[in-house]
Amino acid sequence: MTKQEIIKQIFSKKSYLCVGLDTDINKIPSHLKSAEDPIFEFNKQIIDATYEYAVAYKPNIAFYEAHGPKGWESLQKTIEYIPDDIFTIADAKRGDIGNTSKMYARAFFEQMNFDSITVAPYMGSDSVEPFLEFENKWVILLALTSNQGSKDFQYLKVNDQSLFEEVLQKSQDWGDSENMMYVVGATRTDQLEKIRKSIPNHFLLVPGVGAQGGNLSDVSEKGLNKDCGLLVNSSRGIIYASDEKNFAQVAAQKAKSIQEEMEGYLAKWC
Amino acid sequence: MTKQEIIKQIFSKKSYLCVGLDTDINKIPSHLKSAEDPIFEFNKQIIDATYEYAVAYKPNIAFYEAHGPKGWESLQKTIEYIPDDIFTIADAKRGDIGNTSKMYARAFFEQMNFDSITVAPYMGSDSVEPFLEFENKWVILLALTSNQGSKDFQYLKVNDQSLFEEVLQKSQDWGDSENMMYVVGATRTDQLEKIRKSIPNHFLLVPGVGAQGGNLSDVSEKGLNKDCGLLVNSSRGIIYASDEKNFAQVAAQKAKSIQEEMEGYLAKWC
Repeated sequence: MTKQEIIKQIFSKKSYLCVGLDTDINKIPSHLKSAEDPIFEFNKQIIDATYEYAVAYKPNIAFYEAHGPKGWESLQKTIEYIPDDIFTIADAKRGDIGNTSKMYARAFFEQMNFDSITVAPYMGSDSVEPFLEFENKWVILLALTSNQGSKDFQYLKVNDQSLFEEVLQKSQDWGDSENMMYVVGATRTDQLEKIRKSIPNHFLLVPGVGAQGGNLSDVSEKGLNKDCGLLVNSSRGIIYASDEKNFAQVAAQKAKSIQEEMEGYLAKWC
Repeated sequence: MTKQEIIKQIFSKKSYLCVGLDTDINKIPSHLKSAEDPIFEFNKQIIDATYEYAVAYKPNIAFYEAHGPKGWESLQKTIEYIPDDIFTIADAKRGDIGNTSKMYARAFFEQMNFDSITVAPYMGSDSVEPFLEFENKWVILLALTSNQGSKDFQYLKVNDQSLFEEVLQKSQDWGDSENMMYVVGATRTDQLEKIRKSIPNHFLLVPGVGAQGGNLSDVSEKGLNKDCGLLVNSSRGIIYASDEKNFAQVAAQKAKSIQEEMEGYLAKWC
């Protein structure tokens, strides 16, 4: 998917909501557990219910891997089920030496038709570049994450700036705002303004709103740019809003209320 | 597997060879391609042929993921086929926020019975610790990798030392030499002596001998400690030594010749 197509979708739906499919067999409504593939059945109903309000879906690959080959089948069915005009993110945090990253790229861009994948930067340029060789596919590089442990290394001072700023800067040589986005946690709004200034045109994927404590209004005020430039993810707050039979309906209500809030921010700051 | 069991195996086999199962369908001998599961069939024959000379097997997860659910089945069959007394490494370079790392740990330690997994450090303590909660399982943390891109971030100066040294130092608080090893690329022997001094008791997983240009003699002289303390990986140099019908026999010869070299180094430096 191209940047223009992403932007078009955002302004047409008046939303920059990404729904995280962190689908945990232990958390889905009990009436689904007798389905042939409960994880896919859950995802299908969540997608049907939230499609109108979301511009992206982000399966968290760990939750599928935990079930082995069966989990990968659920993942494959899920990605095939998501409509083509929605942006899809494999939240996989991959990254390895060149010939291995190439295999991961094939797994997520060819074997499964994801539009993008999250990638960890530690191994540097040649661990990221194989993902950038696929046309209209995206790398979403970890910059500043939402978890407590992000303080261990990401804020360390190198060359008079934080390591995450060094990652932002150095990776400008590998790709551009047409094939690269960055992960910036919603709990890091103190840094978001500065990050937006240093990369004015890139999209940012912002996880951590909701269960992890991030605030949508703050993120939007500091992160929106003229093209919107944000994909804000919510997982647990939407997909597990209810564990009753009407879970999909409740998820739709949650997604709708976030979309409406976003519509306001787009009108105000964009 | 405990540290004592790993050491016992090393001194009994007089080897610290890890065979990397980077099994690529395009590189395996053509006569195997008609098998029901060519990747597993190849691995099975490689394992049978090299078992005598190796103390660890390291499937490179990307190569299995690239085939979707079917690849995961080949991986699962492979891990089940490897004898219990050999150390197994899921070369997966995972790492995510706590609840997600927990799912990856379940995937590799419960769903599949791997002894260890390689983990990327960028997201810090809470991305690594969920893997350390499993008894007799190991985290193998990326410190200094063998690829060109390692220079982008791993050598950056933070707190008067390189980032990879900061990773070594900080992670001492998360685990110890009984449940944590480190990846140090064989192409980095200039740093190996210093690393060995700073973590005298930890095992190091050393990839990059062979195809990537690392030298076994250098690595052994600088990396061996009283317990051996090294697992040196060779993938392509062994498993693709021949693409003829007798590939497994040729792989065995290659593994045997590395084992014999290692036997000499163990006698000399250990």
